[in-house]
Amino acid sequence: MVSYFFDENSDMPLYEQLYQDIRSDIISGKIRPNQKLPSKRSLAENLHVSLNTVSAAYDTLKAEGYIRTEERKGYFAEDLTGYLVKKPAKKRDSQRAQNEENEDWYLDFKANAVSVSLFPFNIWNRYQRETMLMDPSVLGRPLPYNGLFELRCAIADMLRDNRGMDVDPGQIIIGAGSEYLYMRLMQLLGESSVLAVEDPGYQKFSIIAESLGHTLVPVPVDDKGMDVSALEKSGARIVHLSPNAHFPTGVIMPVSRRLELFWWLSGGKDRYCIEDDYDSEFRFWNRGMLPLYAENVQDRIIYMNTFTKTVYPSLRISYMVLPWKLMDRFRMTQSFYSCTVSTMEQYSLARFIKEGKYEYHVQFMRNYYRKYRDKVLSALKDSKIGKKAEIIEHNAGTHFLLRIRTGLSKEEAARRGRDEGLALSFFSDYFYHGYNEKECCTLVLNYAAIEEKKLPGLIERLERIFEY
Amino acid sequence: MVSYFFDENSDMPLYEQLYQDIRSDIISGKIRPNQKLPSKRSLAENLHVSLNTVSAAYDTLKAEGYIRTEERKGYFAEDLTGYLVKKPAKKRDSQRAQNEENEDWYLDFKANAVSVSLFPFNIWNRYQRETMLMDPSVLGRPLPYNGLFELRCAIADMLRDNRGMDVDPGQIIIGAGSEYLYMRLMQLLGESSVLAVEDPGYQKFSIIAESLGHTLVPVPVDDKGMDVSALEKSGARIVHLSPNAHFPTGVIMPVSRRLELFWWLSGGKDRYCIEDDYDSEFRFWNRGMLPLYAENVQDRIIYMNTFTKTVYPSLRISYMVLPWKLMDRFRMTQSFYSCTVSTMEQYSLARFIKEGKYEYHVQFMRNYYRKYRDKVLSALKDSKIGKKAEIIEHNAGTHFLLRIRTGLSKEEAARRGRDEGLALSFFSDYFYHGYNEKECCTLVLNYAAIEEKKLPGLIERLERIFEY
Repeated sequence: MVSYFFDENSDMPLYEQLYQDIRSDIISGKIRPNQKLPSKRSLAENLHVSLNTVSAAYDTLKAEGYIRTEERKGYFAEDLTGYLVKKPAKKRDSQRAQNEENEDWYLDFKANAVSVSLFPFNIWNRYQRETMLMDPSVLGRPLPYNGLFELRCAIADMLRDNRGMDVDPGQIIIGAGSEYLYMRLMQLLGESSVLAVEDPGYQKFSIIAESLGHTLVPVPVDDKGMDVSALEKSGARIVHLSPNAHFPTGVIMPVSRRLELFWWLSGGKDRYCIEDDYDSEFRFWNRGMLPLYAENVQDRIIYMNTFTKTVYPSLRISYMVLPWKLMDRFRMTQSFYSCTVSTMEQYSLARFIKEGKYEYHVQFMRNYYRKYRDKVLSALKDSKIGKKAEIIEHNAGTHFLLRIRTGLSKEEAARRGRDEGLALSFFSDYFYHGYNEKECCTLVLNYAAIEEKKLPGLIERLERIFEY
Repeated sequence: MVSYFFDENSDMPLYEQLYQDIRSDIISGKIRPNQKLPSKRSLAENLHVSLNTVSAAYDTLKAEGYIRTEERKGYFAEDLTGYLVKKPAKKRDSQRAQNEENEDWYLDFKANAVSVSLFPFNIWNRYQRETMLMDPSVLGRPLPYNGLFELRCAIADMLRDNRGMDVDPGQIIIGAGSEYLYMRLMQLLGESSVLAVEDPGYQKFSIIAESLGHTLVPVPVDDKGMDVSALEKSGARIVHLSPNAHFPTGVIMPVSRRLELFWWLSGGKDRYCIEDDYDSEFRFWNRGMLPLYAENVQDRIIYMNTFTKTVYPSLRISYMVLPWKLMDRFRMTQSFYSCTVSTMEQYSLARFIKEGKYEYHVQFMRNYYRKYRDKVLSALKDSKIGKKAEIIEHNAGTHFLLRIRTGLSKEEAARRGRDEGLALSFFSDYFYHGYNEKECCTLVLNYAAIEEKKLPGLIERLERIFEY
């Protein structure tokens, strides 16, 4: 008869201790394969525990398959020879101490950082707190697949007031970031479409589209945005554009070019334009050009925007507006995907927008960025860099291009940047087939990421990199 | 000479009013295509406004392409004939009033609702408030692609303490819900794999995998979980399993079957098991079987779990643990995707776990669910339903099966359910090739979704549906 000792001071219930002991004995072979176990009653008497304790342990062992019952014979150990010949996975030195690839840059222009020190956290937090006080059952309910109704209404109103867009909340889909929505959209648009993209342009979209089996055609961008006659020739059915502030040049597509685009859209079956309105909030000397969506052929335009730049980057909320035809298809094929944004943050954002705080903050940041941008631009112009450099900008967005005359190759400039603690972003990286700059290097400067106190340090470092 | 009137009480700046007026005149044809505009100076004098006002309006019109300059000649209207022949999108009756497909069920067993009235919102909200007080610059930084380091550490510790798993935080990826992580994983596992899935089983995974080009092989589940010899024959390279509480039967895979599975995993190159540990927190009379990951061949097991059931459903946080080999591949190919969960909620959850509140809440809910489940079960047994029904359960999870002897077809039962305000979930719907029940209907009853006060109403409705 086996015998076990119990630790009466343990947190572990008695049945669990008994279960663990018998289990180890079976695994170790101390109880042999197919050996008969004592009856529940006799084991209980023997160990001075209740019958319930032994029953619970035996039931667990049986449920997990360590023992079996045979009718009118009792309990037997299963044959688990070889079960726990543990082959442990290869280990690494724990990355915990290293805190991973946390590179310590002075400034990282590749990361999409923005200044959040001016964000009205006090107001935001008030809405968060008020949301917390809501009836908890609201948070227990699954969200609609397309996002909180209140937030979609707030967005529809905002698009009407600020962007001249006539949108029904039923056309809006909320998601955890634009990349996520692009994935959903690319699946929605069906098998292996041919997609035209801006060259140079925002390449994340392209990577996502290609990873989902679509074919990409880069179409050149000139000083009026995408070349629509090249688009026509490309054979693409769908085009991805940022007509209101092209990334990274800031170029705005003028009406004449928009007219060509509308003709192209109406000229073929199932042609669509994905209009990325990202960063369009930050036009500085007027209210920004209205989106394509506001102007024409809304049933061919998929509008995308995000709160990443205007609220704060670690709040993952973006949205898209679908034409009704695509919205119906989305409901049919993708509404089983749960919404990816937490209810609480959707409620808070809805109130932040509805009570005018969002628009107020965007206006405030627009003024701030305009002044700060002027400050960065004149600091650059007044530096040694200024004499050898040209600034390319279109009064829009949170970045500009800085073209520096230099003998350095891009690779050499990047290496020197790293040595100085700067992760530089190069204009030429946004071209699909490379772009060889001769005797100059053009940087994409996301000035929103430069803390004011780091501006002099940045300029010194740029001067050292480009040898003044 | 054109003439314009200004509204001095308008919020709109003068230059914007002037811009709007000239723009409309160009679009309407009142200013003809290629017509010369007055010089800035003469217009300013004429309208009694400053030169700056006219300059700003002209600059905007020019930037957007409504007018052009010709050297030494001045400003001219562009030819935009046809531009604003607006073809408005087809409209629908606004869905706003209708509040969309908000069906008003008495109880919806298809929605994944859980009881949140017992969630300690006071504690959770405290962590949220403390997170709000953090240095705002933290919220301005982009998150690591795999999630907040602090949260990954908290999860690794929790998995070690509660699930016997030895996991490095560097192997964990945080995402906005399991569906999202499944998408990432399916892309990671490469081109068109053959995937074995449990039949019956959790079909969302299958839909996601198929939508990303993988081939599915349903493999039968018996009272020990998936049939591993059928898995061997299926030719699959990857298997998706819930061995610790099969959905929807609750079956636990016993050690003997696990042993076969480990042999299968070691028997071929690049074989992987996706272990979905969903709902395993709710085992009622013991601490639940340890996951496969804790036992063996960790380098072949991808572990998935979610906080949806244990915190609250509208908090969208799930995670997966990857073997190092797959983690390296993930970093190479998918780390450009931003993390989909907001920093604030990740911080709050990390603290909730680290300070023991999460484990305390899970234990509390385990006790609550055990008692509530017993209450639901005995209410059913004592009802008229009880005489014609069998309850199938494995002391696990937040649901059980209720097999009711009836002459009703599934379709008829579903229709009667709808009439009674019940969205019923049928066991047969979880089979890949249908499952014809004869003289009975088996319901999947997610009892966690039944508010206590609705229990008598539910039983009355079930009695009416099945004709007592």
